[in-house]
Amino acid sequence: MTHPPEQERWIRRVPVSVPPPTLKDNTADVDRLIRGLGKELGGQEVRMDLSLSRKIPSFLREHHYRVEGLLYQERSSWHLVDILPPNEKDPLYGLAVDLGTSMIAVRLLDVLTGEIREETSFLNPQTQVGPDILTRIHYAGQEGGLQRLQSSLIQRLNQEIHSMAEKEGIPNHRIVGASIAGNTTMTHLFLALDPYWICREPYIPVLNKPGLICAREIGLGIHPGGAVLVFPNAGSYFGGDLIAGILASGMNQKEEVSILVDVGTNAEVVLGSKDWLVACAGAAGPALEGGVASMGMMAGPGVIDKVIIDPATREFQVRTLGDLPPVGICGSGMIDLVAQLYLAGMIDLRGKYVPEKCGERMEEVEGMRHLIVVFAEGSGTGKALTLSQAEIDGLMRSKAAMYTILTTMTRMVHLEWGDFHRFYVAGTFGSYIDPRSAIVLGMLPDLPLDVYEALGNTSLAGATMALLSMKKRDEVDEIRNRVTYVEMNVNQEFMNEFSAAKFIPHTDRTLFPSVP
Amino acid sequence: MTHPPEQERWIRRVPVSVPPPTLKDNTADVDRLIRGLGKELGGQEVRMDLSLSRKIPSFLREHHYRVEGLLYQERSSWHLVDILPPNEKDPLYGLAVDLGTSMIAVRLLDVLTGEIREETSFLNPQTQVGPDILTRIHYAGQEGGLQRLQSSLIQRLNQEIHSMAEKEGIPNHRIVGASIAGNTTMTHLFLALDPYWICREPYIPVLNKPGLICAREIGLGIHPGGAVLVFPNAGSYFGGDLIAGILASGMNQKEEVSILVDVGTNAEVVLGSKDWLVACAGAAGPALEGGVASMGMMAGPGVIDKVIIDPATREFQVRTLGDLPPVGICGSGMIDLVAQLYLAGMIDLRGKYVPEKCGERMEEVEGMRHLIVVFAEGSGTGKALTLSQAEIDGLMRSKAAMYTILTTMTRMVHLEWGDFHRFYVAGTFGSYIDPRSAIVLGMLPDLPLDVYEALGNTSLAGATMALLSMKKRDEVDEIRNRVTYVEMNVNQEFMNEFSAAKFIPHTDRTLFPSVP
Repeated sequence: MTHPPEQERWIRRVPVSVPPPTLKDNTADVDRLIRGLGKELGGQEVRMDLSLSRKIPSFLREHHYRVEGLLYQERSSWHLVDILPPNEKDPLYGLAVDLGTSMIAVRLLDVLTGEIREETSFLNPQTQVGPDILTRIHYAGQEGGLQRLQSSLIQRLNQEIHSMAEKEGIPNHRIVGASIAGNTTMTHLFLALDPYWICREPYIPVLNKPGLICAREIGLGIHPGGAVLVFPNAGSYFGGDLIAGILASGMNQKEEVSILVDVGTNAEVVLGSKDWLVACAGAAGPALEGGVASMGMMAGPGVIDKVIIDPATREFQVRTLGDLPPVGICGSGMIDLVAQLYLAGMIDLRGKYVPEKCGERMEEVEGMRHLIVVFAEGSGTGKALTLSQAEIDGLMRSKAAMYTILTTMTRMVHLEWGDFHRFYVAGTFGSYIDPRSAIVLGMLPDLPLDVYEALGNTSLAGATMALLSMKKRDEVDEIRNRVTYVEMNVNQEFMNEFSAAKFIPHTDRTLFPSVP
Repeated sequence: MTHPPEQERWIRRVPVSVPPPTLKDNTADVDRLIRGLGKELGGQEVRMDLSLSRKIPSFLREHHYRVEGLLYQERSSWHLVDILPPNEKDPLYGLAVDLGTSMIAVRLLDVLTGEIREETSFLNPQTQVGPDILTRIHYAGQEGGLQRLQSSLIQRLNQEIHSMAEKEGIPNHRIVGASIAGNTTMTHLFLALDPYWICREPYIPVLNKPGLICAREIGLGIHPGGAVLVFPNAGSYFGGDLIAGILASGMNQKEEVSILVDVGTNAEVVLGSKDWLVACAGAAGPALEGGVASMGMMAGPGVIDKVIIDPATREFQVRTLGDLPPVGICGSGMIDLVAQLYLAGMIDLRGKYVPEKCGERMEEVEGMRHLIVVFAEGSGTGKALTLSQAEIDGLMRSKAAMYTILTTMTRMVHLEWGDFHRFYVAGTFGSYIDPRSAIVLGMLPDLPLDVYEALGNTSLAGATMALLSMKKRDEVDEIRNRVTYVEMNVNQEFMNEFSAAKFIPHTDRTLFPSVP
């Protein structure tokens, strides 16, 4: 990612030197400083909180009226967050956060240079209440539930913020801004807004455009006066994470038509260009995310992200993150694995295990077939890593849903696969889906591989871009206002398509000429 | 006072009806409401706090998407404070406050009609720390001192607010805005801003333009989201109270030149017209306010506000507020009394008692002469009400200072007494100074009585006007930006003038042809 130029920054450190007061120039300290900063910012209005006013007189005198203002831009005005000594060399930090339903990714950046200093991801603590959004919405409606959901989230974030700040050797208040992208419900829970109506027809969020929130208002452990940019949503099922994804892909700025698929808990699809944007979110099923498959997990040390099965010997080669003994498999690794199982003949075109081809890797537990992916002796957990028939069935439904949604959407806008200049595949948590494996499974259409571009966590990338650039922040609002959200009409035609897609790669083999 | 028209109000109740959401119109509840209110307000931007967002979805549904927004105007945008049920008939209230160094006056108004519902005044609780500003500034610098000064003030205000609300039979949150005028130090103490530099050269306030403060930020016991308009100051010695006074007099809008004198703890003087405004504040001495003269007090039940002495019989006639037995005398009553003493020959032109003319009313206590104004048997306190020579001496210095300031200021702008179209005399706490008595003493110039206009508490009147009208709010800023504050140069010439003015009415009797 290239760093946006200085003049695009909306969090800035502005050196200012004001004339000391005299009997002839008795303007108050605060007004004097505001006037000086306004001049430095090309005459734009500067505001500040009363609480900061209290610090200003002694600070100005201590530094002989030469200080640096720490400001963030609202719309046409600026907000003074703090004043710092002059000629400060210490960097200022900002947070970019992907607020996922299952996993949360946090990035600490030098907000003036754009440099990434720390990055971490962790399980959303709200998964303790329920892995899925619906359970949490229900829980939020109970006495004190919403507050508990919010505070567990904020506390967990603050822990991570604290430990990142410690690693950097800085106090928390050096982190002066944040940019948060999440789906609509997660955004509501982050802000302690009741998501009750999100899951009830006609599916209405409390708000669409949270804008800038003051950190102290939600208790986020950064500078209490820092601005928290919360991505807007375009509806209950079209959240800030997807808007961040569009921003990260850049498809909203391109002449040519692109398609973006974000394979998370939902499969979210956006089609469009600089002239139009259409989006749809459909349940891709949780098979692609950890927490469901018995060995499924997020990308992390020891997690399998790539599998190769020799079709002749049926020998398994697994690659893990950090080259550690395998402890589990992530979503993209699972797509790889199932594609390889198919190519090796170990599952059939319905996705069912072919026991005679699986040999000693096949075992039956309580009437359910399991394939041993990694034997206990090679595993990092001391136990065998297995994949059950039920888990494959789940993935088959997910991939069929995905392909059907892609087909239906593309038809809806009167396009064909060949019309796409780029096919962006975003997957949360850095697990890059291998397009070839997804094509083999019939999850993604059979396009030339160079059309595909794996983007990783676009929600985090978009949050980062908006943190560093006012131009990108404006683009966020522009995307939100421009995108058309369409409900997937699950009619008979859709169901027919879906049924046809529940085979590997598809009942209509002509759609996948490249798959053997 | 005439009530400003509806379109001038900056606190408004705006009925709004928005279409209920459908699958085709899935705008979030908050955005839907904001959009509706924006339309009602002619397309202006509407903002709101996150905390209010939490209330909106259920409230909108409960009232079938027909509600009333309670808003206040910032500059070009509006801020939504609360939402109310539709067709509400209950009034909304606002507070106007004169934050005096000694006395605080509070007025409760129906903010939609402009009607005054309650009014009260009480001793500033900070007088416990010290009667004068300097003692309080010093106290504010001690550990926790500033916070104690602020919280004693806010607590006392909240007591009064609570009891006024109780009398009206309304909950405190029906009071949705406030307008506060006070001198620069009082404004600082109200906002917990350290006044340390106010009394130190070059006399710099922390801030000049507090603007709108959210009630919850300072703990004022009205609607927590309500706006508190805090009058700006033009310097350490030119406070919001005087700006409110100018506003109340209307001199800033007149073609002709007027002069405004506010006789409080300081004598504040403004000269000008719609084209120019020059102001000066000089110490008029505390003799004009209660708390210093042993019997001096603020206007209130039983307080003497008018004295007539028969020059022949030297019989005293005293008038008290509420026609109750006298308990003390207020500033304007004291001016009356001393003028009458002079006319009756009981004091000489130096302001010294003439014992042989005072008869049985004269007594000496510890070497100091006292005049018995009301004998114990006629007094409401059971004790005699007396006026000491020292108190008269104080008043003589005050009146001399006042006349000298008026003379010096008038000369400075190259005007003469006859050039003033109006001579406004403002006195805090409703104690209307009788111009004739002030002329007799040589405190005010010897102008035709119809040039004088007694205005009472102009600080409270100005605060009220700004509470009810955006136009007046704008005028407040306009006055602040336009007024020129001049320091009184206390040079030899000033001291000569001052010495000459320390006689009744003046050493130069030709200046006061009407005084016998």
